[in-house]
Amino acid sequence: MIPTLTLIGIGTGHPDHLTEQARKAIRSADLILVPHKGSSKSDLADLRFQIIEGLRPLDETVVTFQMPVRDGTRDYVDAVNQWHDEIAAIWTGKIVDAGNPENAALLVWGDPSLYDSTIRIAKRLDPLRKIVVVPGLTSVQLLTAAHAIPLNTLAAPVTITTGRRLRDQGWPDGAETLAVMLDGGCAFRHLDPGDFDIWWGAYLGMAEEILCSGPLADVSEQIQRLRAEARADHGWIMDVYLLRRRA
Amino acid sequence: MIPTLTLIGIGTGHPDHLTEQARKAIRSADLILVPHKGSSKSDLADLRFQIIEGLRPLDETVVTFQMPVRDGTRDYVDAVNQWHDEIAAIWTGKIVDAGNPENAALLVWGDPSLYDSTIRIAKRLDPLRKIVVVPGLTSVQLLTAAHAIPLNTLAAPVTITTGRRLRDQGWPDGAETLAVMLDGGCAFRHLDPGDFDIWWGAYLGMAEEILCSGPLADVSEQIQRLRAEARADHGWIMDVYLLRRRA
Repeated sequence: MIPTLTLIGIGTGHPDHLTEQARKAIRSADLILVPHKGSSKSDLADLRFQIIEGLRPLDETVVTFQMPVRDGTRDYVDAVNQWHDEIAAIWTGKIVDAGNPENAALLVWGDPSLYDSTIRIAKRLDPLRKIVVVPGLTSVQLLTAAHAIPLNTLAAPVTITTGRRLRDQGWPDGAETLAVMLDGGCAFRHLDPGDFDIWWGAYLGMAEEILCSGPLADVSEQIQRLRAEARADHGWIMDVYLLRRRA
Repeated sequence: MIPTLTLIGIGTGHPDHLTEQARKAIRSADLILVPHKGSSKSDLADLRFQIIEGLRPLDETVVTFQMPVRDGTRDYVDAVNQWHDEIAAIWTGKIVDAGNPENAALLVWGDPSLYDSTIRIAKRLDPLRKIVVVPGLTSVQLLTAAHAIPLNTLAAPVTITTGRRLRDQGWPDGAETLAVMLDGGCAFRHLDPGDFDIWWGAYLGMAEEILCSGPLADVSEQIQRLRAEARADHGWIMDVYLLRRRA
């Protein structure tokens, strides 16, 4: 058997969002590596442990590791590459410490394939392991489900992008629907509010879930206020939104 | 209580792809409506029944309905709108026949929000019901998981589109990664094969799963052949692919 590293998508916070495949993968892993988060995101670190504890004992096969800090002074891509090397080295060390078990695993928020670096980091393990990916629900899926709306309009395309990109490059040419992730600063403020509808959600799938939707001109300020208040209350926020060009 | 219609995303064919939320929703529905498919897709109709039967008895609360045929002679959008009206009327009739239970449900392949009309049809029920959406894994997620690749490149956007659109309008301006669904005719044939890599999959999550990937120039003909052979063998095919512009 080639040793494996299983990347288990766990959705966005509610244990009921786990697939049966994810539950089986959590139960059967020989070693689970869990990042030790800083205190501001401790709700999230706790949620990972809660999910594991619902399925297996929190014994010596569940090991935490410290995330290194990314070098903010270097070129973005260079810094990310070096950071990924460092994380891969830490995982390798923890796997060796645990006696090189056959099937190590990590729990990944959302889906390991979407705006997540776990697959890229996993490909830097030395020695390499076979990577097995267990897909999980993304925040975009939780968002459209919570608002009970389709992601696409009839037979039309959808683009998934980041807040940074929307802010720096504006509305993509030809796009009709845009799902925006990883937005720390309400990039929708830079659009002409009369042209778009928005569906916004934060803490999706959690008890704290907040939803707001409507013409961007009507709800833009409300969303900015809700977001700032929730972030101050919780110390962190995870949000996502869908924008659609008005007909 | 307002009566509800729960649209339950069931992923792409394997019972292990169901979330716990989907399993609970299937167990707790007062009535489940299942389309009676024509014989060519009978494997898929059977799979729906298998999933239900794994969770509750197949008794009089699980009711089939006949899908009407879409009028192929009319304008596409007009024909789709009329077809959706007809389906909604059939659902309403089945719900009335069952004594108007509080929580009716439908099982939807993949995620009800992505290239699926169930939400649009549900909004035409008369009288209206509250629509509850349970997200499910999409074939795009199964594809990236099976190939163990990220959907996006680092911090870059992704567009999800249809085969028809790729064929008719070509590669979208500015796109780097394209996930193509609902392609009956290998629309990637119309691209310059030297410019792209492709990751293709069919029957994802099923025992019959087929994967193929590589530079489009190397594997385009192989995928077309695999697809034609599999379609002839099974009588139907469900496939999806990811294209990325080569660096």
